[in-house]
Amino acid sequence: MMEDITIRFEELIAPEDRTAPIMIEGLPGIGHVGKLVAEHMIQELGAVRIAEINSIYFPPQVIIQEGGTVRLCNNEIYRYSGEKGTYLFLVGDFQSTSGEGHYLLSQVYVDICHQLGVRRIYTIGGYGVGHFNEVTRVIAAVNREDLRQQVEDAGGIFSEGEPGGGIIGAAGLMLGLSIPLGIEGICLMGETSGYLVDPRSATTVLSVLTKLLGIEIDDAKLTERAGEMEVALQRLLEQERKSEEELSYIG
Amino acid sequence: MMEDITIRFEELIAPEDRTAPIMIEGLPGIGHVGKLVAEHMIQELGAVRIAEINSIYFPPQVIIQEGGTVRLCNNEIYRYSGEKGTYLFLVGDFQSTSGEGHYLLSQVYVDICHQLGVRRIYTIGGYGVGHFNEVTRVIAAVNREDLRQQVEDAGGIFSEGEPGGGIIGAAGLMLGLSIPLGIEGICLMGETSGYLVDPRSATTVLSVLTKLLGIEIDDAKLTERAGEMEVALQRLLEQERKSEEELSYIG
Amino acid sequence: MMEDITIRFEELIAPEDRTAPIMIEGLPGIGHVGKLVAEHMIQELGAVRIAEINSIYFPPQVIIQEGGTVRLCNNEIYRYSGEKGTYLFLVGDFQSTSGEGHYLLSQVYVDICHQLGVRRIYTIGGYGVGHFNEVTRVIAAVNREDLRQQVEDAGGIFSEGEPGGGIIGAAGLMLGLSIPLGIEGICLMGETSGYLVDPRSATTVLSVLTKLLGIEIDDAKLTERAGEMEVALQRLLEQERKSEEELSYIG
Amino acid sequence: MMEDITIRFEELIAPEDRTAPIMIEGLPGIGHVGKLVAEHMIQELGAVRIAEINSIYFPPQVIIQEGGTVRLCNNEIYRYSGEKGTYLFLVGDFQSTSGEGHYLLSQVYVDICHQLGVRRIYTIGGYGVGHFNEVTRVIAAVNREDLRQQVEDAGGIFSEGEPGGGIIGAAGLMLGLSIPLGIEGICLMGETSGYLVDPRSATTVLSVLTKLLGIEIDDAKLTERAGEMEVALQRLLEQERKSEEELSYIG
Repeated sequence: MMEDITIRFEELIAPEDRTAPIMIEGLPGIGHVGKLVAEHMIQELGAVRIAEINSIYFPPQVIIQEGGTVRLCNNEIYRYSGEKGTYLFLVGDFQSTSGEGHYLLSQVYVDICHQLGVRRIYTIGGYGVGHFNEVTRVIAAVNREDLRQQVEDAGGIFSEGEPGGGIIGAAGLMLGLSIPLGIEGICLMGETSGYLVDPRSATTVLSVLTKLLGIEIDDAKLTERAGEMEVALQRLLEQERKSEEELSYIG
Repeated sequence: MMEDITIRFEELIAPEDRTAPIMIEGLPGIGHVGKLVAEHMIQELGAVRIAEINSIYFPPQVIIQEGGTVRLCNNEIYRYSGEKGTYLFLVGDFQSTSGEGHYLLSQVYVDICHQLGVRRIYTIGGYGVGHFNEVTRVIAAVNREDLRQQVEDAGGIFSEGEPGGGIIGAAGLMLGLSIPLGIEGICLMGETSGYLVDPRSATTVLSVLTKLLGIEIDDAKLTERAGEMEVALQRLLEQERKSEEELSYIG
Repeated sequence: MMEDITIRFEELIAPEDRTAPIMIEGLPGIGHVGKLVAEHMIQELGAVRIAEINSIYFPPQVIIQEGGTVRLCNNEIYRYSGEKGTYLFLVGDFQSTSGEGHYLLSQVYVDICHQLGVRRIYTIGGYGVGHFNEVTRVIAAVNREDLRQQVEDAGGIFSEGEPGGGIIGAAGLMLGLSIPLGIEGICLMGETSGYLVDPRSATTVLSVLTKLLGIEIDDAKLTERAGEMEVALQRLLEQERKSEEELSYIG
Repeated sequence: MMEDITIRFEELIAPEDRTAPIMIEGLPGIGHVGKLVAEHMIQELGAVRIAEINSIYFPPQVIIQEGGTVRLCNNEIYRYSGEKGTYLFLVGDFQSTSGEGHYLLSQVYVDICHQLGVRRIYTIGGYGVGHFNEVTRVIAAVNREDLRQQVEDAGGIFSEGEPGGGIIGAAGLMLGLSIPLGIEGICLMGETSGYLVDPRSATTVLSVLTKLLGIEIDDAKLTERAGEMEVALQRLLEQERKSEEELSYIG
C-alpha cells in the first residue's frame, strides 16, 4: 500500500547533517514569489537536497526531466550549512490538490522541522493585489507577538486587513501548526500584480528576509531565474489544464 | 500525524468548570443569525473560552488577528456560569468544507455535549426567505415532540413546509445526532432576507431564546456588533473567494 | 466517533423476524420509479420498518417531519411477511453524495441481504429517455444469464445498448456486488420521460415485478401517491439546491 | 466492508502461471491508443485473463454485457506465455475518478508487477496534439536513463518539452512508482489528434513496442477493432455523462 504522505531522507546524509535552526518555505503560490526566493537561495548558497516528499495529495502525474526520464511530483528539502549559517529550504512542484491535503501535508512539514531542530520557520509567499504598484511592499504576519518588531525593523509591513484576514495553503498553515510545537513562524508576502513569476517582488522579499537572517545574498540572477521558471511553469500549468480535461475524459 | 478533528481544553480550567446543562450553538450560517446571537450572549454574559476545535475539514488557511499574529481557523466552546445560569456556547470561523466533514464535526460536538453533561442543545440559524419582511418570524424545529409546546409558548413558530423539509449543517445535524444520546434539541431559525449579518432577525431570535432560558439579555448592542461582524466577515469571505482561485492555481 | 455507515435494527423485532428470501430496492432515482414502486408496495402490504441506515455519505442535513420534529436523512429497510410472501424493501431519502459512498453503501446493502438470508434482489429504477412514449417499456438487466428467461416471460425487455452500457448507483452496484455472495439480481427500469415522479412508468414496472413475484398488488393508488411524493420531493430538492448555495456560503 | 481496492486472481490459474518479466499497460486514455494496442495484442496472442481489480475509485456503475448480464467496472490482467515470450497486460473500463485514487491504484498495479516477477513495465498512451499530422510520432519517456538508447533504436522519440512536462494517470504514475521497486519503465505515447479511438496512432506505437519486444504482431485487424471500440466507448461515455447528471439528481 502507498502511504498518503511519504518522506525519504537521502541515505548518504548523516542524521546530524540534516538539522538546522531555520527553515525557509518557498512552495508554489501567487506570483511564485516564495518558490523564486527559495530556489534562488538554494542555488546561490549551493544547498544540498536531503529529503523528498511524495503524496497522493499532489496531482496524479509524473514530471518529465531533461533527457526524457520521469520522476514523481514532489516537495523537497534542501540544506545549507556554511559561513552564512545553517538553513533548511522547503520547495516543490505543487501544493496539495485538496483542503484536507493542505492540512495533512503542512502538519508533516512542521513535524519534520520539529525533528530537525528548527526553531524558526519563514514562509514566503505572494500577495496578489491585481494591479501594478510602483513600490512593492512586503506584507508580514507572525505566530507570536514578540516577533513583530524585528520583522518591521527589517522592512516587513503589518497592515491591518491585509491580506484580507487570512493566509491560505502551506505558508499560512505552517505558521499556525507550529505554534503548539513552540516553533517561531514569520510569513513574508511580496506584493505582486498577479500570476506571472515576479522577480521584482521576489527581490524585495529577499532583501527583507536576508536582513532578518543577517546575511547577504546576491540578487543579480533573480530576474534571469524568474524567466526560466516562467517557461517551466507555463509548461506545467498547461499540462495541469490538459490533465483536468483528460482526467474527466479517462476517469 | 494530524488528527482529522482535534479538541483542546484550556488547561487552567478544572474539569468540573467545563460542565453545563445547556449548549447554545451559533456557527456561521444564513444571515449569520446564530453567530450573532451566540457571540452577543458570550460578550454580554462574559463567558469564558474553555476549548478550541481544529480540523482538516475547515478551510486550509490561518486567520490574521489584530497585531498581525495568526491562528488556525477554529471552532470554540465558551462557558458562562453565574446568576443567569450555566451555559456552553459553540461558535467559530467556519463550518466544514465537505458533507462528510459536517457529519464528523457535528458528531464531535454532540459527543462533547454528552461528556460535559449537556441535557439540551439550542442550535441557532437563519432562515433565508430572499425578501424583506415587516415581521421577522422565528421558525423552530425540535428533536422530540414534547419540546414543541414550550417553544411555541416562547414565540417560536412551527410552520409545515418551512424550511422546505430540511435543516443543513451543524444546526440540523446536531439535533439529529443528539437523539440517540438522549439530549433534547431545539433549533431556532430567524427569518432573514439574505446574506448580510441581520441584527433585526438576531434580536427576535434572542427574545425567543431568552424566554426559553428564563433569563434576560440586553439587546442594545446587537446592531453595533452586527456592523462589526459584517466588516470582519466581508474580509473573510473575500479571502475565501481568493483562496479558491489561488488553490486552483497552486494546487 | 461517528461510523461512516451505521445500521440500527429495531430492537423489538426478533432476529428471526428480519429474514426474507427476497429484497426489493427502491431508492431515489430517475423519475423516482423505484421509490414509488417500493413505497407503494410497503403501504399496500403493510410492511414494517425493521432497520435504519445513516451515513456521512448522505447529504449533511436533517429532514423536518410533520409536527416539526427532525430526523437524520436515512435509508430504511421494511419487511412484509404474510399470505403474499416474505419480502424486504430498501427505501430512503437519498443515495450517496459521492462515488466512493455509492460503492460503500451498496456493499453494506448486499451484506445485510446476505445476513438476512436474501437469495434474490430486485433493484427498481427509471430509464430516462428524454421524451414521452405512448408505450412504457420495462428494460431489464440481470446478474446471471439463467435469470433472463423468467424476466422476459414477465414482460421485461432486454435491449442491446439500452441503457447505454451501464446502470449507475445502488440499482446497478447491488447487482454487481451480490454476484460473489451468490445472490441473484434483477434490475427493472421503467422508461420515463424525465425527472417528474412517473406513476405510469411505475405501474408498468409494478406489473412486471408482481408477475415475477407471483402475487397481485392493487395499483389504484399509485397515481395518488405519485402526486404526494412529487410535492414532498420538490421540497427536498429545493432544499438541496439551497443547501449547496448555503454550504458554499458557510463552509 | 468493501476494500477500497480488491484484486481477485482466477483460482484455476496456478501461481507459477501468473508470473512474467514484462507488463504492458493499456488503460483508457487520450485517443484510447493504449487500450487499443493492449487489447489488440491480447486478442492476437490469445492471452488469458488471470486477475480482476475492482475499486471504489472507479465510477459507481455496472457495465451491461451482451445478453443483458451486468458486471462491476473493473481493470483486468491478462497473461500470454508462448513462442513470442511471456507478457502481462493491464487493461480495463476506466481509470480512477479522483487524484488520490490514481495514486492508490497505480501503487497496487506496480505492487502486483513486483509480486509477479515483472522487471520491465511498458505504459502505452496517446499524446493529444489537437490537430491531424501526416506523420504520427511515438513520444517516449523512461524511468532510467540507460533505457533511452534502446527506445530510440526502436523508433521512439525523446522530444524536450513534449508532452509539456508531465504524464498523467497510470501511464505516468506506474513509471514513477516502479523506480523504488527497481522495475524498468518505458512510456510510449502515440501522437493523436484528439478523442476518437485512433488506429493509425496505435499502429505506429505497436510497431515501436514490438521492435522493443523483439516480436512481430499482425496489425491488420487494428482498424477494425478501433471501430468496434469506438462504438462501445461512445456508449460508455454517453452513460458517464448521464451518470453525472443523474448522480447530481439522486445524490
